[in-house]
Amino acid sequence: MNAPAPNLALEAQMLDLGARARAAAASVRDASPATRTAALTAIAKRLRENAAEILAANAEDVARGKAENMTAAFLDRLTLTPERLEDVARAVDETAALPDPIGAVIETWTRPNGLKFERVRTPLGVIGVIFESRPNVAADAGALCLRAGNTVILRGGTDSAKSVAVIGRALRAGLADAGLPEDAIQIVPTTDRAAVGLMLRGLGGAIDVIVPRGGKSLVARVQDEARVPVFAHLEGICHTYVHAGADPAKAIALTLNGKMRRVGVCGSTETLLIDRAVAPTLLPQIAAKLTEAGCELRGDAEARAITAMVEATEDDWRTEYLAPILSVRVVANIDDAMAHIATYGSSHTETIITEDAAAAEKFLANVDSAIVLHNASTQYADGGEFGFGGEIGIATGRMHARGPVGAEQLTTFKYKVRGNGQTRP
Amino acid sequence: MNAPAPNLALEAQMLDLGARARAAAASVRDASPATRTAALTAIAKRLRENAAEILAANAEDVARGKAENMTAAFLDRLTLTPERLEDVARAVDETAALPDPIGAVIETWTRPNGLKFERVRTPLGVIGVIFESRPNVAADAGALCLRAGNTVILRGGTDSAKSVAVIGRALRAGLADAGLPEDAIQIVPTTDRAAVGLMLRGLGGAIDVIVPRGGKSLVARVQDEARVPVFAHLEGICHTYVHAGADPAKAIALTLNGKMRRVGVCGSTETLLIDRAVAPTLLPQIAAKLTEAGCELRGDAEARAITAMVEATEDDWRTEYLAPILSVRVVANIDDAMAHIATYGSSHTETIITEDAAAAEKFLANVDSAIVLHNASTQYADGGEFGFGGEIGIATGRMHARGPVGAEQLTTFKYKVRGNGQTRP
Repeated sequence: MNAPAPNLALEAQMLDLGARARAAAASVRDASPATRTAALTAIAKRLRENAAEILAANAEDVARGKAENMTAAFLDRLTLTPERLEDVARAVDETAALPDPIGAVIETWTRPNGLKFERVRTPLGVIGVIFESRPNVAADAGALCLRAGNTVILRGGTDSAKSVAVIGRALRAGLADAGLPEDAIQIVPTTDRAAVGLMLRGLGGAIDVIVPRGGKSLVARVQDEARVPVFAHLEGICHTYVHAGADPAKAIALTLNGKMRRVGVCGSTETLLIDRAVAPTLLPQIAAKLTEAGCELRGDAEARAITAMVEATEDDWRTEYLAPILSVRVVANIDDAMAHIATYGSSHTETIITEDAAAAEKFLANVDSAIVLHNASTQYADGGEFGFGGEIGIATGRMHARGPVGAEQLTTFKYKVRGNGQTRP
Repeated sequence: MNAPAPNLALEAQMLDLGARARAAAASVRDASPATRTAALTAIAKRLRENAAEILAANAEDVARGKAENMTAAFLDRLTLTPERLEDVARAVDETAALPDPIGAVIETWTRPNGLKFERVRTPLGVIGVIFESRPNVAADAGALCLRAGNTVILRGGTDSAKSVAVIGRALRAGLADAGLPEDAIQIVPTTDRAAVGLMLRGLGGAIDVIVPRGGKSLVARVQDEARVPVFAHLEGICHTYVHAGADPAKAIALTLNGKMRRVGVCGSTETLLIDRAVAPTLLPQIAAKLTEAGCELRGDAEARAITAMVEATEDDWRTEYLAPILSVRVVANIDDAMAHIATYGSSHTETIITEDAAAAEKFLANVDSAIVLHNASTQYADGGEFGFGGEIGIATGRMHARGPVGAEQLTTFKYKVRGNGQTRP
């Protein structure tokens, strides 16, 4: 009874947009890798050629944001400068230089009856990208989807609508330059929030997967409402675990880097777990470095008995601070540390610091997160650092894509089976 | 307003069952391959030891089915005999003999900074299997899920409830024999249909994926209502395409085998497409063989002008007969054939019959189905024929599993990253 009255005009418009993306999918899928590369190169060129127009539209978005008293951080995310726009174009050029994943043979085998099997990569299909204020996401995400042979429906936030509309025209013009259908990249032309709800229901089967790019409230809404698969992580509650066998210098450096290199990224360490055996000697040194770097520590009773810090509450273990704050817990041993991670972690990224190879292997084997590291910073949770060239985000779900979502993760596969007349007995 | 009143007792019971399956997941996941093998071997042994009890329970289900005037085909699917039960136990032994996929290294690479990356297989988690009258599915599906390190929630049809309950006890006893938690295999203990609805909503996050095993109406309901990923195919509208370059003997043999080897399987050919250039000579020969084998043909005007057959309607191109009926269409060329498949196919399995290598490669590259074959029967669409050892079904979705779903397809992966103190610049 409380459902809003359906907006039939909006629904028809969105279904048409989905149908266009779907209809264009075969052209992009069956195009040669060189054609997809040519389209990406043309898109980068168009972004540079249309710089004045893009920056003018962006200035309108920024002026509106200022008039609405948006925060400085928000306005910074929204703002394009000539330098930032060149970075966007360069990122598209880099995506053009990535290997084209489509048609790659993943595995081959031959059966005793002579049938030759090949598992080969094919595009996922139509990808819906829902993002917020950063207008560069339109170009980044559009390019990566196209590299993997997909078509894409881009829906940016209301605040960046003018910027995204103009960037979208550049993307579509680049497609046309390479002889691909413009409809392979769709820009949702309305700021009506109901359009997002329609995308989350899949536009009548037109959307194969949704990728949200933005803050936790956007991701939560998408994960909650979507009727199609979602590649995302709600939060990165990442742990650095200092094992009794840790090299002290590595423990200090990796905790500091894991937390403080950039505090606002999903791979930032949010909780330090440290073995009871080494806490009295090591925790004061780690705490001193973190405090010196401007980090607030919140510890359990045992940590606070060793080093003065704020008292951690149960909520702290479940909090992704994305800020210079670190929760600290002293654990009895590796099993205790893994139990803490299983209870409070978000299956994103965890690292163990130790020189004990057996402990490291146990941690790597039994911690059920997308990324588990040994003697390396949690901040390596990044597609670029994995060598993927680019990523559209990090997924913590268990289906299809897990960890950094690069071009290869935006593909599916099929089986090619070659025979010489085999009939099945 | 029309929603049924929630059954809170049922919901609590099902949530508890889901929580138990989830709680058992780590034990199965972290067990050694040898332990999982031992559990499967113990399950096969328990099925044999408990044969009398299982057959007695099955006799009760069959008696009830007879009293309710179920069809002979239905009763046949429901009925276990000593021989069939031995087949079930032997299938579990075969699953025990399959390679354990967990921990297998899928790929490795090293980055310039020295970080060593490994992508390794891990279990998917908790799999919900919803099936109908065949009680053997409980053992087959339970064993395959366990081989891949998963826990499983089995929900059989009301008609086989007594059989499945007793088989379920054997499965759980086998787990305990190997030191694994009985809760790793859950049998839904109620025949309340609302339990299925609760499973489709995921039991509060306890279920990672649903696999329906049964007829089209079950699969349709699951695909329609599920809020968690589903591995399934709604139907297999499979095509055999006889290209102008076909070897006549292969064209005849592969069409006959593709359609008539078994008409009730999802890989059975439902539509024959044949090039105009060879239809006048080849179609009469193919039609004669099919008719002789008891197959009804339904053709378009051009096919009927060549060989007498029933008139095909638009519906025929969209129908999975699962019966000795074949629709027949004469096409202009390979593009016409591929367009027909794109319009009417179900993305399951299609084959091209030709000696023209270029045509074959074009078909294999551009037909977007889970399985595409060249000079082989569509009836090879089967996990066993792929060499997967066993399968829980065939998926036509684009996410995660596509084609036959064997043990390997019931896994996911994670990244292990080994460093020596790397901090991210």
